[in-house]
Amino acid sequence: MDGDLGLSMALLRGMPLFGPGTALADEIVAALARAGDVLRNGDIVVIAQKIVSKAEGRTVNLTSVAASDDAVELARRTDRDPAMAQLILDEASEILRATPAAIIARHKSGHVLANAGIDASNIERGDAGSVLLWPVDPDASARAIREDLFRLTGQRPAVVIADSMGRAWRIGTVGAAIGVAGLVVLDDKRGKDQDLFGRTLQATVIAVADSVSGAAVLAMGEGAEGTPAVLVRGCSRWVTDDDGPGATDGLRPVQQDMFR
Amino acid sequence: MDGDLGLSMALLRGMPLFGPGTALADEIVAALARAGDVLRNGDIVVIAQKIVSKAEGRTVNLTSVAASDDAVELARRTDRDPAMAQLILDEASEILRATPAAIIARHKSGHVLANAGIDASNIERGDAGSVLLWPVDPDASARAIREDLFRLTGQRPAVVIADSMGRAWRIGTVGAAIGVAGLVVLDDKRGKDQDLFGRTLQATVIAVADSVSGAAVLAMGEGAEGTPAVLVRGCSRWVTDDDGPGATDGLRPVQQDMFR
Repeated sequence: MDGDLGLSMALLRGMPLFGPGTALADEIVAALARAGDVLRNGDIVVIAQKIVSKAEGRTVNLTSVAASDDAVELARRTDRDPAMAQLILDEASEILRATPAAIIARHKSGHVLANAGIDASNIERGDAGSVLLWPVDPDASARAIREDLFRLTGQRPAVVIADSMGRAWRIGTVGAAIGVAGLVVLDDKRGKDQDLFGRTLQATVIAVADSVSGAAVLAMGEGAEGTPAVLVRGCSRWVTDDDGPGATDGLRPVQQDMFR
Repeated sequence: MDGDLGLSMALLRGMPLFGPGTALADEIVAALARAGDVLRNGDIVVIAQKIVSKAEGRTVNLTSVAASDDAVELARRTDRDPAMAQLILDEASEILRATPAAIIARHKSGHVLANAGIDASNIERGDAGSVLLWPVDPDASARAIREDLFRLTGQRPAVVIADSMGRAWRIGTVGAAIGVAGLVVLDDKRGKDQDLFGRTLQATVIAVADSVSGAAVLAMGEGAEGTPAVLVRGCSRWVTDDDGPGATDGLRPVQQDMFR
């Protein structure tokens, strides 16, 4: 099935628990083989941020973190653990909002989200004081996984690393692309295509990688039922040979922030 | 295929051009029949806002609009047509930002988006001065289409009306749900589910209808290649017998706006 018919998202089931050094590409290829399928050019593999972070050893025990004066102050204002506040400060280039309800930060990669991406759920049992940081450079992580998949299969599927994010005016989270290799991030239709009646489309820039990630993260599910990787077919028109600029290409420059 | 396997999105091809009075439910059922398929309980029909608006006669010719002093001032500040500025003021409950680059408004339904949802593309050729307003009450439109689909088929698929929206910190648009009937808008996991290691999930509210809409609008495409309706399968766990509270349930109350 390709774009002319629609799209499909298949869960890659039976993946192991991930830890430092788990070979993500190997596990993706193995999961597909168990399902009697193989990777093809034009496929998109969407991977949950949490397993990329675990494979990259981004788990941190809060007891190992020494909180600075700034972190103690941020923790006091937001009713957080000072060690957690310190990690947020370490991971962020800027704190946009800090209240007990939410700390909204710009991660060093440029993405804006709650707690600079730090997650305290789905850490192994008995490790209650641990949290999970984002990959240091999610676009580089996506490129590395894509290269591994090519090495294993000879195919160049796109790789997207996705995480759940909140929105400014809408409740709840949707999946968004935080690392991208080989997928068009923004399909800029301005002045290129014509609409159904032959006029030039106005100001249409489609956030392709985010649009795919939203439904992929929904399909993955959360918690005990969760499956951290999804194979997307039907979007091959947006899959590229080159890795492309990555997910950071889809971030609004700070000076264009709509809220300044 | 259901959620255990993933999800699928099929384009409902061969729909007619829509105008005032076009029976949307009839056309959806006919498109499915042409594809050799039928609606089932648990399906989700995602429909582009523009065809709902056209069927509801929401096309307005700018020459018929008299601009108030406020509209003339807004047009001057934003380099817009005064008639367009008047329509934005008429459709909005509040203007959040107004510059030549963008007018961000809260539509009377509560949704925040550019130009209060008014679109100047995909209006019939020869009708260059016309624009298309949102449905007056997109949730009511979704409920009415769902009722028509039930009357025609005896099945109760969910109905989602979707439009493309910009985001605060990310470039490009993604589809979002502006009218919903029979689909969980927010899946609130807080304190209910346990994660993979038996701990209670923290602060997880999944924006289900928006997550589905993003990929559905991507699958629809734009312009001459566009197909304005998509059948989504694999999400039946979120489809409800009752119509539910609608898409407005997913809007952040004004007093919780993260940017005030």
